[in-house]
Amino acid sequence: MAETIDYFTEARSVEAVNARMGADTAPRLAQVMASLVKHLHAFAKDVELTQEEWGIAIDFLTRTGQMSDGNRQEFILLSDVLGFSMLVDAISHRRPSGATENTVLGPFHVADAPRYPMGTNISLDGKGESCLFRGHVRDGDGAPISGASIDVWCDNAEGFYDVQQPGIQPQWNNRGIFTTGSDGAYSFRGIRPVAYPIPADGPVGQMLAALGRHPNRPAHMHFLVSAPGYETIVTHTFVEGDRWLTSDAVFGVKASLIATMEAGTDTAWISAFDFVMTRIG
Amino acid sequence: MAETIDYFTEARSVEAVNARMGADTAPRLAQVMASLVKHLHAFAKDVELTQEEWGIAIDFLTRTGQMSDGNRQEFILLSDVLGFSMLVDAISHRRPSGATENTVLGPFHVADAPRYPMGTNISLDGKGESCLFRGHVRDGDGAPISGASIDVWCDNAEGFYDVQQPGIQPQWNNRGIFTTGSDGAYSFRGIRPVAYPIPADGPVGQMLAALGRHPNRPAHMHFLVSAPGYETIVTHTFVEGDRWLTSDAVFGVKASLIATMEAGTDTAWISAFDFVMTRIG
Repeated sequence: MAETIDYFTEARSVEAVNARMGADTAPRLAQVMASLVKHLHAFAKDVELTQEEWGIAIDFLTRTGQMSDGNRQEFILLSDVLGFSMLVDAISHRRPSGATENTVLGPFHVADAPRYPMGTNISLDGKGESCLFRGHVRDGDGAPISGASIDVWCDNAEGFYDVQQPGIQPQWNNRGIFTTGSDGAYSFRGIRPVAYPIPADGPVGQMLAALGRHPNRPAHMHFLVSAPGYETIVTHTFVEGDRWLTSDAVFGVKASLIATMEAGTDTAWISAFDFVMTRIG
Repeated sequence: MAETIDYFTEARSVEAVNARMGADTAPRLAQVMASLVKHLHAFAKDVELTQEEWGIAIDFLTRTGQMSDGNRQEFILLSDVLGFSMLVDAISHRRPSGATENTVLGPFHVADAPRYPMGTNISLDGKGESCLFRGHVRDGDGAPISGASIDVWCDNAEGFYDVQQPGIQPQWNNRGIFTTGSDGAYSFRGIRPVAYPIPADGPVGQMLAALGRHPNRPAHMHFLVSAPGYETIVTHTFVEGDRWLTSDAVFGVKASLIATMEAGTDTAWISAFDFVMTRIG
């Protein structure tokens, strides 16, 4: 009886590769890898990728890995500018209409920021235009959520987070955690966030330049809102009117996340935004 | 007139990302990147990739870049074991039926090997089972090709190329270049090649293990055959009967590239293989 052998051919490349997986491969890993091979091969066939282009890709990916260290993660940047991070976030956080949408966490969250009473000013470096952030945390029926934790962080007036400038900015500059009372209300003072570029001095910056794309993110305040029994919200509020709103380098903007920014009385600005949380299960 | 804004959504993720490319982007780059984004996003949607899995992928790719240096190219290995290198090679080298097929170059070719007269023994370390390699270089009509350059290289009897063991193996061990005369014939002595594993001590080796795949390549002799007016052939001949023929870790085997390996008279073995070249244009 002749042995049937499934050697690699261009036409059956996906089948040849995926047939190799062992029977004991973890089912989810097998599913993910089989799909990855299918889509990667479809890409190469779609564009008839040349060996020279393949070499450029190998070099690009290698440099992207080598650019990364404890402080810089160039592969996350690559994922971000390809919209891949936002896509994975979207797939994981499909919420009912009216619930606050997620966006990317970003690389600058730090756990265990100081806990402050409502109204506290989190800007510690005295720079920037003062801004009051306020609103409510509610459930899908409009009822206030008590005991919700609101962890916030943003850049300073020069476009840098405190962790990017240790020794230059005070630690915990423009960061803090607030907890709602029975009315579900929150308020804190800070600065009107400013737009800033993602790091553009590596392979990802070179790629953006080749694609005619700028590296800027529109001004935003990060929010991580959590409460027992509710899905945690990881999101930003964006400053209305920002020139980069429609071209965020990492595709983080959703229309529902653009917050009002109006002239204030004892602060230069007031930004109002309400969070709507979804019950777990 | 209201501005229409195409913010990122899960459903229209590909369009949102690809709409960002500048009008002046080089047309081929724009084509390749648009297809890459389309297929990468389709992959994430297909498997509903989780954020935890995304994190594992970021870490894997980063380590793959960091494993690479002047002597080790882990991203090429990754491409190889996913069948991607063979696919790109196949797309670039579609040849008429009967012409010798290509396979991957591999990382161990060295330019400017010694040029020898036909029949020379290229095994310099005295190890292994002696083998005579012989055959003809012909065109598609069966006519001999004169002046064809045949650049050959293989591992030693312990499964290592000379460049992997500088100071242990003699330089140019199991390498040489031969030029055909008017009869198109070639012959040289060497050893019967042996199977060997690709480097398995890095991220790619970990991935193969998780997929229940071995890292071995079946025994093969590399050939780079070139002649003026003909398409260069980059290929291997594989040793018939090798246990890894049907499961080459890098998918390099094609049925047409399996060469006979028979008992010889003044060498232990004889391997016969004819090359058929395709005219350019």
